[in-house]
Amino acid sequence: MSKEKKIYLNEREMPTQWYNIVADMVNKPLPPLHPGTKQPIGPEALAPLFPMSLIQQEVSTDRWIDIPEEVQDLYKIWRPTPVHRAYNLEKALDTPARIYFKNESVSPAGSHKPNTAIPQAYYNYKEGIKSMTTETGAGQWGSALSFACQHFGINLKVFMVKVSYEQKPYRKMLMNTWGAEVIPSPSMLTEAGRKILSQNPNSPGSLGIAISEAVEVAAKDEKTKYSLGSVLNHVLLHQTIIGLEAMKQMEMTGDYPDIVIACFGGGSNFAGITFPFLRFNITQGKKTRMIACEPASCPKLTRGQFQYDFGDTAGLTPLIPMYTLGHNFVPDSIHAGGLRYHGAGAIVSQLLKDKLIEAQSVKQLETFEAGVLFARTEGILPAPETSHAIAVAIREAKIAKQEGKAKTILFNFSGHGYIDLSAYDQYFAGLLQDHEITQEEIMKSLAQLEKVI
Amino acid sequence: MSKEKKIYLNEREMPTQWYNIVADMVNKPLPPLHPGTKQPIGPEALAPLFPMSLIQQEVSTDRWIDIPEEVQDLYKIWRPTPVHRAYNLEKALDTPARIYFKNESVSPAGSHKPNTAIPQAYYNYKEGIKSMTTETGAGQWGSALSFACQHFGINLKVFMVKVSYEQKPYRKMLMNTWGAEVIPSPSMLTEAGRKILSQNPNSPGSLGIAISEAVEVAAKDEKTKYSLGSVLNHVLLHQTIIGLEAMKQMEMTGDYPDIVIACFGGGSNFAGITFPFLRFNITQGKKTRMIACEPASCPKLTRGQFQYDFGDTAGLTPLIPMYTLGHNFVPDSIHAGGLRYHGAGAIVSQLLKDKLIEAQSVKQLETFEAGVLFARTEGILPAPETSHAIAVAIREAKIAKQEGKAKTILFNFSGHGYIDLSAYDQYFAGLLQDHEITQEEIMKSLAQLEKVI
Repeated sequence: MSKEKKIYLNEREMPTQWYNIVADMVNKPLPPLHPGTKQPIGPEALAPLFPMSLIQQEVSTDRWIDIPEEVQDLYKIWRPTPVHRAYNLEKALDTPARIYFKNESVSPAGSHKPNTAIPQAYYNYKEGIKSMTTETGAGQWGSALSFACQHFGINLKVFMVKVSYEQKPYRKMLMNTWGAEVIPSPSMLTEAGRKILSQNPNSPGSLGIAISEAVEVAAKDEKTKYSLGSVLNHVLLHQTIIGLEAMKQMEMTGDYPDIVIACFGGGSNFAGITFPFLRFNITQGKKTRMIACEPASCPKLTRGQFQYDFGDTAGLTPLIPMYTLGHNFVPDSIHAGGLRYHGAGAIVSQLLKDKLIEAQSVKQLETFEAGVLFARTEGILPAPETSHAIAVAIREAKIAKQEGKAKTILFNFSGHGYIDLSAYDQYFAGLLQDHEITQEEIMKSLAQLEKVI
Repeated sequence: MSKEKKIYLNEREMPTQWYNIVADMVNKPLPPLHPGTKQPIGPEALAPLFPMSLIQQEVSTDRWIDIPEEVQDLYKIWRPTPVHRAYNLEKALDTPARIYFKNESVSPAGSHKPNTAIPQAYYNYKEGIKSMTTETGAGQWGSALSFACQHFGINLKVFMVKVSYEQKPYRKMLMNTWGAEVIPSPSMLTEAGRKILSQNPNSPGSLGIAISEAVEVAAKDEKTKYSLGSVLNHVLLHQTIIGLEAMKQMEMTGDYPDIVIACFGGGSNFAGITFPFLRFNITQGKKTRMIACEPASCPKLTRGQFQYDFGDTAGLTPLIPMYTLGHNFVPDSIHAGGLRYHGAGAIVSQLLKDKLIEAQSVKQLETFEAGVLFARTEGILPAPETSHAIAVAIREAKIAKQEGKAKTILFNFSGHGYIDLSAYDQYFAGLLQDHEITQEEIMKSLAQLEKVI
């Protein structure tokens, strides 16, 4: 049993396959529907947007999918990532719980996002694609894809939510350093953007609007493909390398997690760390609790409805079965920009419906309090998104103390906050507040949705 | 022989002693002199500024000095750090050279600086000190010491060079997150600061001025001690853990470095990676070249003079035997703020004088070109300081290509640049220039020095 603070794997111990949880789900996720006909769509309907190898992964029911060697090779720039035991945090909380975290912040882009950016760029490259589009909120996803596309010689246009573009210039600079073009969204480059701007010239933008713009550009040019950083099945699939590594590392510690925790935007880092453990719940009768942590200002899992909805604001994407607040929902401008998304991916939504996973919401001030405590005890400054997972890990460690139980808690440290320091500055200056969404606001947004099923 | 891209050590393989090169130097460094009497000072003269255990290390000739267990314990938050093989950079340069780098950017503060910040805070804490002062240029050192002091319950005042305070707000925010007070220097809090401001109310500050302020505050209050992030013998000593780890890791690769490279401000990261290898040059007849890389705009090693000079601008510190441009020299406002220091530490200066190490200077544009190539090939965005080492590693890899020799090059990746992204932005916008210092400017600055020896 390792007594070390950090548990490493050798590169040759890095998983060579991703895990597809669909193979082990009793209730499979419902199929996506055509936005016009409302009928289930086949793989070919996605062909204008994605290369065929990713579409095959999107609909695959194979349990294991090989990671191409060129992707493994690039992963090894930073993978396998370490698991840390948070001894100093445990001490500060005076808890009997053993707290571990998987450190995905050591990647070039500073988060888990390159785990899917690299295979997505790779499969596009293999199919001869030379230009791609995507959207980004706070910039974590955009910078990861910039790095990946630059490696494979693909030109990338990133539609960045305008409020982030203005408030977070460092992320834009990082994307530029990796050769991408960054466009504040809404823009005049697309019909979707022009429509929003004609209604509201000062629109701060949203992830849903930026997706509409990126999708539109790709759909109109057959040589350009689109890429999404979360929500979709193949994205979640690529992230499972996190949990597959973590399982091996937890084995080395001699502890098995009672609770696995991750923050939740569209579901990819949550899926990444939890699915391999969830597999053992399903197939081996383990009882690990999986907790998705969302912002209280964007509570699709805890207060949304399970129904078909669009992935974007303009209604260009297929309809996806999801827990949603409605695709027109515009959440508060909290600093965890990566979690400001109205819906959850189809797989994760089905798992929540089937009570195989749990969700908790966290208010912004609690997340910053947790992030500062973490930075002061464990040293690494968390991204505001990641602080949602830390806040819930702290909640659970306090419960463990009350119960006097030495539970094992594992959370995903999805990204660092060195490029988001202005958020901490505002927190210390007392400029951040918690805003409670009323049930009325949520119902109003949901009422705009057409009932499909 | 490892074929992995990253070579890790286990925590139990982390060195438990620092290496003191003074024990192996044939020509020992000359002693510091009292600024008034010009006579060699004894350890007691440093007592107002430093705790006794650090003063003992400052004058020690013991070859090995134990790392206290509490320091080892904190080191293990991120140490041992990995050595990476830069395969993608090698490929981009089409060089037969094998390029390795020691990645010190994985620390909480993002650089090698915590290696000495932690023991310095620890020894002060052990001697009952509750408040400390320091200075910082670009902010790497200040943030490292903030983290360390916060852990040991010590209040810290950081005098930050005013131009950096204004241009690099993120570093200030990081120091605040770790509980430190940050004061733009020159300030009205000290005589030294007031004197500068009375002459030039718009002074942008300099490292020399900030040192004067921090030293003055500590000297006037017997309960407050001062801490320096480079130059001094005990600081270099603490950094040797870098090279001691790297030796073990290079052994695992089967390669032994022909060249070891590091950027150079006051000498600490350079000493850290080179001294353990230099020991084998001295004691085992190895022929590894050690190259210190300084900015062409602050060329103390390549164009300065070896003589006694002050460590600060106001002349409050002891006189140190050093390669210097004169303590009144104000270098260009380049982005590598950590390298804008007029002098070199006593040990490193003696080694250069004895031709046991080499130096090269690099212009700013060449460093950014190197930094961007590195970010695009190896993924990690380097600090502008670190890019000086990368630029020289690239020069040497190109020479290896011309010569057709498969040389082994190791450089210290001293810090990441995610908090310095605005510098990259200016580079891409074409706003950075190279400024050539004339020999006349250097001679004029040196002419102001009093000849002591």
